[in-house]
Amino acid sequence: MTEHPTVAAFGRSEGKLTVGGVPVDRLADRAGSTPYFAYDRQLLTDRIAQLRAALPEGLNLSYAVKANPMPAVVQHLSGLVDSFDVASSAEMLVALDTTVPANRISFAGPGKTDTELRQAVAAGVTIEMESENEADRLVRIGELLGVRPRVAVRVNPDFALKGSGMRMGGGPQQFGVDAERVPALLKRLGDTDLEFLGFHVFAGSQNLRAESLIDAQRHTVDLVLRLAEDAATPVRYVNLGGGFGIPYTDKDQPLDLAAVGDNLSELLTGRLRPALPEARVVVELGRYIVGESGVYVTRVVDRKESRGKTFLVVDGGLHHQLAASGNFGQVIRRNYPLAVGTGFGAEPVETVSVVGSLCTPLDLLGDNVTLPRADVGDLIVIFQAGAYGLTASPTAFLSHPAAAEMLV
Amino acid sequence: MTEHPTVAAFGRSEGKLTVGGVPVDRLADRAGSTPYFAYDRQLLTDRIAQLRAALPEGLNLSYAVKANPMPAVVQHLSGLVDSFDVASSAEMLVALDTTVPANRISFAGPGKTDTELRQAVAAGVTIEMESENEADRLVRIGELLGVRPRVAVRVNPDFALKGSGMRMGGGPQQFGVDAERVPALLKRLGDTDLEFLGFHVFAGSQNLRAESLIDAQRHTVDLVLRLAEDAATPVRYVNLGGGFGIPYTDKDQPLDLAAVGDNLSELLTGRLRPALPEARVVVELGRYIVGESGVYVTRVVDRKESRGKTFLVVDGGLHHQLAASGNFGQVIRRNYPLAVGTGFGAEPVETVSVVGSLCTPLDLLGDNVTLPRADVGDLIVIFQAGAYGLTASPTAFLSHPAAAEMLV
Repeated sequence: MTEHPTVAAFGRSEGKLTVGGVPVDRLADRAGSTPYFAYDRQLLTDRIAQLRAALPEGLNLSYAVKANPMPAVVQHLSGLVDSFDVASSAEMLVALDTTVPANRISFAGPGKTDTELRQAVAAGVTIEMESENEADRLVRIGELLGVRPRVAVRVNPDFALKGSGMRMGGGPQQFGVDAERVPALLKRLGDTDLEFLGFHVFAGSQNLRAESLIDAQRHTVDLVLRLAEDAATPVRYVNLGGGFGIPYTDKDQPLDLAAVGDNLSELLTGRLRPALPEARVVVELGRYIVGESGVYVTRVVDRKESRGKTFLVVDGGLHHQLAASGNFGQVIRRNYPLAVGTGFGAEPVETVSVVGSLCTPLDLLGDNVTLPRADVGDLIVIFQAGAYGLTASPTAFLSHPAAAEMLV
Repeated sequence: MTEHPTVAAFGRSEGKLTVGGVPVDRLADRAGSTPYFAYDRQLLTDRIAQLRAALPEGLNLSYAVKANPMPAVVQHLSGLVDSFDVASSAEMLVALDTTVPANRISFAGPGKTDTELRQAVAAGVTIEMESENEADRLVRIGELLGVRPRVAVRVNPDFALKGSGMRMGGGPQQFGVDAERVPALLKRLGDTDLEFLGFHVFAGSQNLRAESLIDAQRHTVDLVLRLAEDAATPVRYVNLGGGFGIPYTDKDQPLDLAAVGDNLSELLTGRLRPALPEARVVVELGRYIVGESGVYVTRVVDRKESRGKTFLVVDGGLHHQLAASGNFGQVIRRNYPLAVGTGFGAEPVETVSVVGSLCTPLDLLGDNVTLPRADVGDLIVIFQAGAYGLTASPTAFLSHPAAAEMLV
């Protein structure tokens, strides 16, 4: 059996998986308890290097903090990416604590409250407006604070990203301003004291098909160039979105990053630079940067047989890593890659189900997986835990102990 | 349109929904912010009264704290129910803070750690053992602490509860000891210093069909009486489980509680009392007690049109009430009952979608619902938020502000 590429990227030492060079059992002692999340600093660095190599020079790389807002992760990435995107004022404060300047932080999201808009204006970040209503409120807040709000328009495109894990553009949407309404909004903006910077178009997320991403990026550039004609001032910011997927399951093929990079190079050099020479052009990635760098590690507390089936009952569960249980947005449950961290690379000898410690049959982490023998005390490692892991899980469910997080 | 029964139970005053007699807008000011959860104290009391009226005298009512562990709710219920069931040591500590004595608290759940077992033994609660392994560990812990552990055996029955929201019995399971292995375990227990009390059989949850519950209860009593023959000491505790469902959507018919109560009366008087005269017989309910008493209240921060569709964007979302978004265990998404709390009872005039403030299309709270006109500032009320609401939601997702909780 060939190893899943995400798994193969991790280190190993004397039959144990390592994160940041430290064996997982040693990390458990360091954390003082299981379960825990560990993120590999070097894998983060490597991933940015891969992106820089594949993407054209001059294209900016923005990290979507929502994928993993752990402050240490955000600090590490602040030295590697060009900008941050945040989805709440709490994320904004984490981003502002780094050396990335406020004018390289963008704040997106429908349903921003007046309090959040006020914080964003005070901080001097770029507010990606999701509706005409936000423009009106920002004018008032700017006057109140005596600060000129920096704004971009998030556009709901007139196309969708095909084959996306989540469709976030095309048709009626809560996200952004419909493309056909943007010219009227730009006209209104020209009469206000808002500092208009440019556009953000986000068509979908978690896409593994390069041709779909390429197609969406071409359509995005068409749309941005068309909309730019109605802007009263030169466009200085173009956020092309992201949507780069990672291979969660054995059936998934990794994204062809080189193909996507080549297309972005063409679009940047051939179309965007000539037409919009002042624009900072950005791709915004979250999951693709951090998702594969993290693991969730949990200890076997019981090994039981029930009517011919073997269960490994672990001390973690869906309260820490809901996505791996298949209960957050997935239509069909598929196992995430999973290994015995304390018997890493050993011969698989049995088929077991790995279940969490919660009183619910939903708490299934690995369904009929073939693994080396694992006993009480062994550590089970669940991969693909770097993005939308702990923060996308119901941590208070059944009031179980919290999971530690470490950047190693 | 007739009102959903859950909605009809709430009070109203001058066009506003009330919780505990207080209008929802007044509660928002009291909390100091939106969104919030509010639980109606009187509705909790009423629900217990309904259960007492329908269930036979002498049948004990146990509250499953996991459904809603808010300390004020648990305190209120402590004066109304006979016992508590907990699913973690944190829940146990909340239960122990009430006047319910430790010997009326049971602790269930697969994957209990040594730390948790030690806490439970020290507290003197009844440990519902999920496997033979737990028995061995409890013997050691009992010796260590010089305390005799109180134990019951959780049984994985040889039947399932038909039509259940979640199947938790029958076939291979991580829960409990397979029925056919219980006699051997009882024999082992007879040689230890564990204080054996009885059995817990839990076949499934969230069931709206009285005939299925009745069938499962009959099978449970058959099973318990059969297993009791192998017990070395008289059975003093029989937990028949629960599984009583609540009507989440318009398509659901409420459970026929009277029919279930009549059957339990027959089983208690006709079979359990004669055979097991010393047994405290328990039904354990969580969702049925608290689910319908609670609402999630969130404010409209934007009202936007997109390509012919109207969106009400609210300041809450799936990070507080994941179940209402249809993303936690549900196969098909259906709207929970939903109302404009500040225009309650007004004529429905438009079809809108209510979406949360998160950057994801999963954050859908009401899909194409027909409502009275609601504008920015109005409060949207989502019902069925009393159980598995805030604690079953990914509260840190996108780092949005926390929701308040109030018992009114």
